[in-house]
Amino acid sequence: MKRTVFFISDGTGITAEALGDSLLAQFAEIEFEKFTLPYINTPEKAAETVKLITTAGIKDGLRPILIDTIVNDEIRQILNGCDTLKIDVFSTFIKPLELEFCTHSSYSVGKSHAIVEANRYKDRIDSINFALENDDGARTKQYSKADIILVGVSRCGKTPTCLYMALQFGIRAANYPLTEEDLEHNALPECLQPYKDKLYGLTIDPFQLTAIRHERRPNSRYSSLNQCDVEIRFVEQLFKKSLIPYINTTTFSIEEISTRIMADRGLQRRFNN
Amino acid sequence: MKRTVFFISDGTGITAEALGDSLLAQFAEIEFEKFTLPYINTPEKAAETVKLITTAGIKDGLRPILIDTIVNDEIRQILNGCDTLKIDVFSTFIKPLELEFCTHSSYSVGKSHAIVEANRYKDRIDSINFALENDDGARTKQYSKADIILVGVSRCGKTPTCLYMALQFGIRAANYPLTEEDLEHNALPECLQPYKDKLYGLTIDPFQLTAIRHERRPNSRYSSLNQCDVEIRFVEQLFKKSLIPYINTTTFSIEEISTRIMADRGLQRRFNN
Repeated sequence: MKRTVFFISDGTGITAEALGDSLLAQFAEIEFEKFTLPYINTPEKAAETVKLITTAGIKDGLRPILIDTIVNDEIRQILNGCDTLKIDVFSTFIKPLELEFCTHSSYSVGKSHAIVEANRYKDRIDSINFALENDDGARTKQYSKADIILVGVSRCGKTPTCLYMALQFGIRAANYPLTEEDLEHNALPECLQPYKDKLYGLTIDPFQLTAIRHERRPNSRYSSLNQCDVEIRFVEQLFKKSLIPYINTTTFSIEEISTRIMADRGLQRRFNN
Repeated sequence: MKRTVFFISDGTGITAEALGDSLLAQFAEIEFEKFTLPYINTPEKAAETVKLITTAGIKDGLRPILIDTIVNDEIRQILNGCDTLKIDVFSTFIKPLELEFCTHSSYSVGKSHAIVEANRYKDRIDSINFALENDDGARTKQYSKADIILVGVSRCGKTPTCLYMALQFGIRAANYPLTEEDLEHNALPECLQPYKDKLYGLTIDPFQLTAIRHERRPNSRYSSLNQCDVEIRFVEQLFKKSLIPYINTTTFSIEEISTRIMADRGLQRRFNN
């Protein structure tokens, strides 16, 4: 059984999609075909959307699911013309909030809310620059300014995690690759010693590591399973010995890795959305 | 009037937060103090959370708002012990979906759903590597493999936008900085000519650009308002003349810029969440 799902928004569609994905993930046995339609903000676009939805319903022989965060009432009315199961996020939850706050929301008066963006933008840019400048042990002088320093072997997921924390939470995240030499010394590199409280280890399944490294340098010693296995065993021993908290990235998403690290280290985001 | 809000999840908290922020943004006149509590996945953590919520309620003299996506029923029962306005996302929307699909969700049977992560992880890593390797015009040989190539003057937001598209959507995004020389020639650089269909321009308010550049190189010609103003005027002319679609990044979030570019260029994400 396949069901077609539309995430529809007059904005980016990111909220409708995040919520919808979480809900649909609870129905593992059903196959979903998902479409995100952002910026449905004119009657013309809404009318086109109605056509899309109707066509999908006919094709499936089952009504599509519509998960929306549309604010504008005219647009909503047009979409109401389709035969769908409608998960209407705003109209469901705005009312109890209005009663709680004894006020009308801008939603009820049909106005979309403009995000005050300037401060967050600056924090994000600063954090991304920090992550890029302090990537892969490129510089270690700025470690005193870092919120967190990720350590781990080459290709275990340090860079994407740093970038995600920067973009999503404004965290200043540096990362340092533990080399074979570091591992042979069986001690933390000197440049990391003063920042032990900021260190967080990443480890990974050797089979996944070898697959990732093979793409980079096929059939090299660097990418061999044996080498990956040795490095991972060394690095996990080092984390334990040095009392560095660590996480195995193999089965976690970047979102999970980032938020777990922040929870473990008590890191506060630098901006609210 | 200040209200305290808790976004609570037994996972990352990202969904609860995204939804909650969208809802609260409709109440512009109310000041919110927001706390995201991820990984509340044991009775002990739930009990601690109850204490936090209760304390906040006493301090405010008003009950806190609780926006949660908790799956585990035991945890939910514990949190129900607090006096809050509860925006209970899952229990509200799972029921109509179960009826629609004629099945029980794993939510109803109290099981959290593990995300199948491996494919998405690989796509994300590949896209991030692509963005980093093709940042700032570093290489132009891989442009044939790019989904999109952002063009604009130095510090107008190209890099963060590329990284966001890579992380969030698996888009292969390169970027090329238009230099003073390019602008004086008043023509697209030759390396971009074959890829006109992939180009997308970013522009920015000169006052914001001068502020951003001042942080980088204070009191330089590069960061002067006059220089920024000249570059921006040139670049906008070039976009118009070359029929390159463009967006002014000044008042948009990175989420909005990214999703608008993708919608304009008909780009499809490389993975679903």
